[in-house]
Amino acid sequence: MPHVLFLPAQRSAEVSVGASLLEAAQACGVEIHIPCGGQGRCGRCAVVVQGGDGRLRRRSTIRLSPADIAAGYALACQSLVLGDLAVVVPPQEEIARHLVTAKHAVAVEPPAGYTVADQPLQAFFLALDPPSLADQTDDWSRLQRGLAGAYGVSGLTADMDLLRRLGEVLRSADWQVTAVVELDAWDRPAGPPRLVDLLPGRRTDALHAIAVDIGTTTVSLFLVDLMTGRVVARAADYNDQIRRGEDIISRIVYASRKAGNSQPAANSVNSANLVELQALVVGTINRLVEQACRRAGVEPKQVYKATVVGNPTMIHLFLGVPPEQIRLAPYIPALNQVPSLPGAAQALGLAIHPQATVDCLPGVASYVGADITAGVLSSGMHRSEALRLFIDIGTNGETVLGNADWLICCACSAGPAFEGAGVEHGTRAAAGAIEEVWINGDTGEPTYRTVGNLPPKGLCGSGLISLLAELFLAGLVDKRGRLNQGWPGLRDRPSLGPRVRRGDHGLEYVVAWAEETAIGRDIVLTEVDIDNLLRTKAAIFAGFTSLAEAVGVPLEAVEEVLIGGAFGQHINVEKAVEIGLLPDLGTGEGWSRFRFLGNTALNGAYLALVSRAMRQEVRNIANKMTYLELSADNRFYEQFMSAMFLPHTDARLFPSVASRNT
Amino acid sequence: MPHVLFLPAQRSAEVSVGASLLEAAQACGVEIHIPCGGQGRCGRCAVVVQGGDGRLRRRSTIRLSPADIAAGYALACQSLVLGDLAVVVPPQEEIARHLVTAKHAVAVEPPAGYTVADQPLQAFFLALDPPSLADQTDDWSRLQRGLAGAYGVSGLTADMDLLRRLGEVLRSADWQVTAVVELDAWDRPAGPPRLVDLLPGRRTDALHAIAVDIGTTTVSLFLVDLMTGRVVARAADYNDQIRRGEDIISRIVYASRKAGNSQPAANSVNSANLVELQALVVGTINRLVEQACRRAGVEPKQVYKATVVGNPTMIHLFLGVPPEQIRLAPYIPALNQVPSLPGAAQALGLAIHPQATVDCLPGVASYVGADITAGVLSSGMHRSEALRLFIDIGTNGETVLGNADWLICCACSAGPAFEGAGVEHGTRAAAGAIEEVWINGDTGEPTYRTVGNLPPKGLCGSGLISLLAELFLAGLVDKRGRLNQGWPGLRDRPSLGPRVRRGDHGLEYVVAWAEETAIGRDIVLTEVDIDNLLRTKAAIFAGFTSLAEAVGVPLEAVEEVLIGGAFGQHINVEKAVEIGLLPDLGTGEGWSRFRFLGNTALNGAYLALVSRAMRQEVRNIANKMTYLELSADNRFYEQFMSAMFLPHTDARLFPSVASRNT
Repeated sequence: MPHVLFLPAQRSAEVSVGASLLEAAQACGVEIHIPCGGQGRCGRCAVVVQGGDGRLRRRSTIRLSPADIAAGYALACQSLVLGDLAVVVPPQEEIARHLVTAKHAVAVEPPAGYTVADQPLQAFFLALDPPSLADQTDDWSRLQRGLAGAYGVSGLTADMDLLRRLGEVLRSADWQVTAVVELDAWDRPAGPPRLVDLLPGRRTDALHAIAVDIGTTTVSLFLVDLMTGRVVARAADYNDQIRRGEDIISRIVYASRKAGNSQPAANSVNSANLVELQALVVGTINRLVEQACRRAGVEPKQVYKATVVGNPTMIHLFLGVPPEQIRLAPYIPALNQVPSLPGAAQALGLAIHPQATVDCLPGVASYVGADITAGVLSSGMHRSEALRLFIDIGTNGETVLGNADWLICCACSAGPAFEGAGVEHGTRAAAGAIEEVWINGDTGEPTYRTVGNLPPKGLCGSGLISLLAELFLAGLVDKRGRLNQGWPGLRDRPSLGPRVRRGDHGLEYVVAWAEETAIGRDIVLTEVDIDNLLRTKAAIFAGFTSLAEAVGVPLEAVEEVLIGGAFGQHINVEKAVEIGLLPDLGTGEGWSRFRFLGNTALNGAYLALVSRAMRQEVRNIANKMTYLELSADNRFYEQFMSAMFLPHTDARLFPSVASRNT
Repeated sequence: MPHVLFLPAQRSAEVSVGASLLEAAQACGVEIHIPCGGQGRCGRCAVVVQGGDGRLRRRSTIRLSPADIAAGYALACQSLVLGDLAVVVPPQEEIARHLVTAKHAVAVEPPAGYTVADQPLQAFFLALDPPSLADQTDDWSRLQRGLAGAYGVSGLTADMDLLRRLGEVLRSADWQVTAVVELDAWDRPAGPPRLVDLLPGRRTDALHAIAVDIGTTTVSLFLVDLMTGRVVARAADYNDQIRRGEDIISRIVYASRKAGNSQPAANSVNSANLVELQALVVGTINRLVEQACRRAGVEPKQVYKATVVGNPTMIHLFLGVPPEQIRLAPYIPALNQVPSLPGAAQALGLAIHPQATVDCLPGVASYVGADITAGVLSSGMHRSEALRLFIDIGTNGETVLGNADWLICCACSAGPAFEGAGVEHGTRAAAGAIEEVWINGDTGEPTYRTVGNLPPKGLCGSGLISLLAELFLAGLVDKRGRLNQGWPGLRDRPSLGPRVRRGDHGLEYVVAWAEETAIGRDIVLTEVDIDNLLRTKAAIFAGFTSLAEAVGVPLEAVEEVLIGGAFGQHINVEKAVEIGLLPDLGTGEGWSRFRFLGNTALNGAYLALVSRAMRQEVRNIANKMTYLELSADNRFYEQFMSAMFLPHTDARLFPSVASRNT
């Protein structure tokens, strides 16, 4: 079998002929990031192969130039081992660990008048009579008698693990115990109650639960004390799945692929890759649980429930359910409304109480998930007569239009450009990211602000929106997104420097010179980047205009635009309107019609966790929401094409921008 | 670390100083039987140690003579390793594998008018509409819609394993599937229904279940086709736990002991020994499932439910619940009424469908379990006004007295003498066991019949009853159980051979000479054996008389005596009355008041499996039954002492015997 040596790690393995370099690396424990999920699309897994002649087969060289190939470059995911090789792995782009926790945390309060009885988990203290020859009642019946007598709870069930521990806990605690009981669940409102744990002594303080939002990029978590309903700690971190694909489609492709085969598998149930992705997200959640519990002084075993939201792909991967039908027409998820999963924590690998119930909130369609229904719940738009538009500005661009009477939603496949992917110098909103740009209309010279005021590393979503808007308003970019080499400021004062120049990918605008940056290279925005940004903003715009058209409501009738998602908190609305990403509802007072709601998905999960009524409400939202499938909709395509301009083909739709631009 | 070599196996291991020889043997995979559970009581684990001086510590030498010890004998369970040793393991007594299956199988029919709807498991065929862009309903909702539309089943739940397979099964089967659904359970009569399996195509023939009786000695099983309600195969075998203790107390002691310590552990939850016993009984059941399924042409994965009965210790061990409180005053089981355990098959290790529900029928007290409530169910005594006495003649001697209005029960710790344990030449009712004996009243010479008409190996329960009765009627044994050396037949004709002689354990009667037997030794009944038999029969007699006294009913008022347990099928009633084991209800017509019911426990489990009404009935029986704790009852002790005679101190209680004996 061929022998593959990885450098600089100095690790090697014997692999089968035909194994990919990626598999060989995995066999040695050498980590290679594959942001596109191993499809050969992103080119990030390029490595340098020594002695590759005849011992390596390149299945695809897309993303590699002839010079690269001559120098020995190969894509790890696309290259097959035929003989002995040495492989140099260049330093991988680090995934910066950026805690969203502290900053921008919206205060979350329990619903008014919260009592522990509002939700199904209860901690009942019991002082039982010890058994005797005169009362030989068995332990389990004695416990049930105590619960029925003191609290009117009857018909208890329990899992085997608990039945096995019952006798010892009762005796070691001298018959003074706290029974943690889940009285009901949304899909068994009539019970029976389930004994989740039995603790020695009076431990009504032990009752905790978590609300979790599994984002494609970021996982966020609240730790909740169920006695008070309060959030006692919060934590957030990148989803570890990122290393196996940056966007949803990449992850589905990776999950569906059988090991040793770059093609999606026809029958991929429980493929090793799916199992890996499941473990990665659970590992992320467990890290957050550990952090939050440590901060709040709570043992993870005192966490008796997890209420989880996320887009459908994230929920499928979290549960280990194959997601591949989500990306194949006619785009069918395995399940939108997940049954309540009592005691599933252990099987899923969650490091909370092993018998904890896992409750995934309901989604609506393949690309409109529980994060959106929870977002609507948290926004309250389903309770008011006022017409509102809810937009989650992210990869999927989920959008909901409606009010108390009706709700219609869509997802518009915006792509990850605003999250920094697919853009030459794109980055996530981590330290050093350019988050705001201003361009001098006379000189064309930029100034910018970075996260943490550090030397710039790249452009995050809000920075990209800001830069594109400024370029457009300054006339450096025309309405079709083309850079203007003949711009007066540049032509007249060439000494100011060639901010617009021709680069490897056509024309580009230099935002920061190499010497200012943390990366030692010029940070630029290329015309290809601008094209990607136009596609993204056009998709989102076309999404909500298609919704409005579908129900025959003019956009001006929208009383409020609600912007959800942690990303949404950083956007400058004015600039988002200037590029045509958000609808032009007029300047001045118009801006007050935009409202940023923060992580609406997590807030909604929290509400459904602490309130049976809210849990029912989110179900009603999911049932009530009409889904508009855009891939089958000609209106969407037309709207999309019209929106591929700055701000739009039809300038009348953006009167405030037109007035500034002239 | 000391090195221990086992011969003749030639296997060795390094063990810690202070490890027992038993542990050393287990470490090498050398099997040593410990019928008493490793308490040092039975002496069956004796081995010969070479070079033991100073390298072995004998914690107990009970059961070993000074000569034995001089010869190097040591009890494996009681001897600790201090240095290097060689150990010779004598051939172990083989546990004969004896299938109870074929012979004595009582015909079992489904309840009259059985339909599959009588029990909760259903197989619903569904022809679903495939998804399209016009109908993007998710797989799980589509399935539920189909079930609701065609069969009115709504609010389905499912386990994660099934949710993970859902999409693939639906697509590979082209949307034609059979949904196996458990509509309800005894402790959730209102549902929700649970999807247990999803099969491609129309597979309503797949619906099977098992009824299991876990006896201390024998495990028996019915495989049931739920579409017809019929038993399609049956199987039985010895409980593999026998090798870790022959009676209940030995197994509790073994289960409660921590590894490396011969004392019962205070906190023994999930001790290795408990886990081992759990695996042993599940292994036995799995072997029976495999046999029964093979015979009936059914895949074990088509078995979707297990209804299980057994005495409380057997149920505790089957579930892995620590049983030690059962043997310690005040004798409290962890649980009598086990909750329904949906999907527990996998966690328990049962080789049936992993999501199968395990339903253990309810017991009453520490020594009156589900085998007895199921026995009563099967007997029908709880439905009639006639007063009946139900006796399970076995180690525990469970007895129930009552009718449709009331039921009272007890267990009388009869001991295993009738099962062949604690008797010099006792054996189980396997091939070669003497099952019936006749003694010539003039000569004192015996004739006998063996199971399978093979050369005798020993005396089984019915043989012991028969032999004792014959010895008593012939005057060879007096009413106190003493052998009569001066018996006229022996005294006058010494040439007939010394049938009564003095042996190692006092006087003994020779039933078979060495040359007639399969074991090459005389088969004898000693006075010590007789004493054990008297204790056993006295305990059973005292049990039912105490019950009758407790409710103030004379024994003569009992219209019928029902004898349950597989063992009961082989007893000669007349002889059982002669020794005072069964009550004397008069000769001739009186015999018709005794009825043998076979394996009532298994039959009852079967009835509860195929009928919701029967499942409720057995629960009512358990709730209604009053338990009389005999260990706290002076009447029992007095009755026991009075019954330690043949047939009884008070000869008036046995008029038919008195008339024959004079």
